[in-house]
Amino acid sequence: MFRSIPLFILLALCLPPAFAKTSWQLTMAETWPKNYPIFGEANRQLADTVAKMSDGRLTIRIDSANKHKAPFGVFDLVRSGQYDMGSSSSYFWKGKVPNTLYFTTMPFGMIAVEQYGWFYHGGGMQLMAKVYEPYGLLSFPGGNTGNQMGGWFKKEIRSLDDIEGLKMRIPGFAGEVLARLGAKPVNIAPAELYTALERNTIDALEWVGPSLDLRMGFHKIAPYYYTGWHEPAGEMQFLVNRRSWNRLPNDLREILKTAMRMTAYDTWIRTTHESATNLAKMRQEFPAIKIRSFPHEVIEALKKANDALLAEKASADPLAKEIIDSQHRYMEKSRAWTLISDKAYLDSSTE
Amino acid sequence: MFRSIPLFILLALCLPPAFAKTSWQLTMAETWPKNYPIFGEANRQLADTVAKMSDGRLTIRIDSANKHKAPFGVFDLVRSGQYDMGSSSSYFWKGKVPNTLYFTTMPFGMIAVEQYGWFYHGGGMQLMAKVYEPYGLLSFPGGNTGNQMGGWFKKEIRSLDDIEGLKMRIPGFAGEVLARLGAKPVNIAPAELYTALERNTIDALEWVGPSLDLRMGFHKIAPYYYTGWHEPAGEMQFLVNRRSWNRLPNDLREILKTAMRMTAYDTWIRTTHESATNLAKMRQEFPAIKIRSFPHEVIEALKKANDALLAEKASADPLAKEIIDSQHRYMEKSRAWTLISDKAYLDSSTE
Repeated sequence: MFRSIPLFILLALCLPPAFAKTSWQLTMAETWPKNYPIFGEANRQLADTVAKMSDGRLTIRIDSANKHKAPFGVFDLVRSGQYDMGSSSSYFWKGKVPNTLYFTTMPFGMIAVEQYGWFYHGGGMQLMAKVYEPYGLLSFPGGNTGNQMGGWFKKEIRSLDDIEGLKMRIPGFAGEVLARLGAKPVNIAPAELYTALERNTIDALEWVGPSLDLRMGFHKIAPYYYTGWHEPAGEMQFLVNRRSWNRLPNDLREILKTAMRMTAYDTWIRTTHESATNLAKMRQEFPAIKIRSFPHEVIEALKKANDALLAEKASADPLAKEIIDSQHRYMEKSRAWTLISDKAYLDSSTE
Repeated sequence: MFRSIPLFILLALCLPPAFAKTSWQLTMAETWPKNYPIFGEANRQLADTVAKMSDGRLTIRIDSANKHKAPFGVFDLVRSGQYDMGSSSSYFWKGKVPNTLYFTTMPFGMIAVEQYGWFYHGGGMQLMAKVYEPYGLLSFPGGNTGNQMGGWFKKEIRSLDDIEGLKMRIPGFAGEVLARLGAKPVNIAPAELYTALERNTIDALEWVGPSLDLRMGFHKIAPYYYTGWHEPAGEMQFLVNRRSWNRLPNDLREILKTAMRMTAYDTWIRTTHESATNLAKMRQEFPAIKIRSFPHEVIEALKKANDALLAEKASADPLAKEIIDSQHRYMEKSRAWTLISDKAYLDSSTE
């Protein structure tokens, strides 16, 4: 009976899979230099997980800043389709799209566990989509730094007078807040930071926290390490070009989405672990490090300046207002819980 | 040329995929009753994610306690292979395998972000594998409740005298600790808890926290809600039968592993969100709820009793000692970081 079926039909019936597209490669531009610890490693882990889950059908080729030469141009690289994906941080784009500011971390804002609640259950993802949609981009949480330290200071901060005229490397919105108290925020390339602090070109600087500060060596030249107020939950970002996303079959989209979400959480736990490990190392090598919190009057003045700046932004743009209000409402609710759970536990069990 | 190749060979060459096994179904027994909020929903979400990522090649069929009738027999159901997977909590098995106690949460132990650090970077996963390996089981983190509340009390606790003779529903290790202070820990089926508290059969009880307490209604009959000391980071558990795991191809193992890991983190964020939301509801409905922390002398006595119990366990079993020491060392390191990051931030920004 088979003999009566023309051979080319038999072959056509069994060959189609060979003609269908069976594998996809995405390219990713990361803001980080080659071999960057934690964030760079997380991207390689992401690519590995995606390849394993898809049995090699989906691969991600990663270019570091050394290759694409545009660490702060990742938004455009992905928007234009030169790259399918980006690994960066949302607030880097605030000069281009002001409302991207709100999806990294805000001074006196939510801590990481609260902010993930806002993203996934408090409307944060929808608001982020609204901001990125006009640019043909999808944005996802990309890993949290945890609470960042307030920075390394050569002199102790005892009152508002010590802020007046303070030359500090502190970029972005936090720099604007500090400027309202009379400080002089400056931006300096990472590679020159150590020398600038050592030679007193600046009086202080903030970087991240022990996870990434240890290798910079600041603890060798500045005795005071202040606790944080300005970046309580620095969230990194995965960007995906919408056309690249749409070309993927549904199963690979789900694989990519799940891997990004898991990687973001994993990075948060990793930075927390590295901070704990490196803090112990710093203290062992330099027992003289003085850890301080800003005095009450400084914190109150910073809060006031922060509120005033946010009010200006909210009154200038309805979408900014929507985001600021949403964060404010969510934080009020979630902070009440934080205070009677982890905070109360830490207060009572370590007193 | 094709004409000279026997037809059965041609067909054999193009048919093999049809003979290979292409889809897998795993069965899961969960400790939770049908339609259980948060944990039950998370399992359905896990099954859905796994099915989507595998394009339907891997499915999970979930049976709730109503079906398998053995909420606290999940360990055996999975060990025997009656089910491929389980969703439960490690410390439920301490009567059977004492060292399973340490992988849920410990009194005065790590908070969630610290404990995930221990699991994934501090040797926790390896120690958990050591405990479960002899039973042919793999165990994975299955979702965190966050810091659990210390419970609902009919009367205020002002001193150690108020603990003496206190009849409280508080199961497990925490109950043992409390008993050393003269309390009378009892276990009561969940369905009877409300009536027991209402009729003063018990003076107090602990359940979880606002995320799951609200629906139980305790806030209507007990005025005091105490902050936690005994379960700072209740981690649920996914169990997998090793033979079932070994039967899966590598890509499906990676899909299952990734989905479980993401689901665990997601559940933690979800419980935090639900706690925040439900706390606000409770306070709105019953503004009279009095939130308290135990007095210093009670906390100190609980700590002492806890240390003594742990020392007994460590001296009785080398593996218990290894786990307790590992947790102790990791917590010391990570707590130092927690205190100058989230804790210092919450102290200074909410003062």
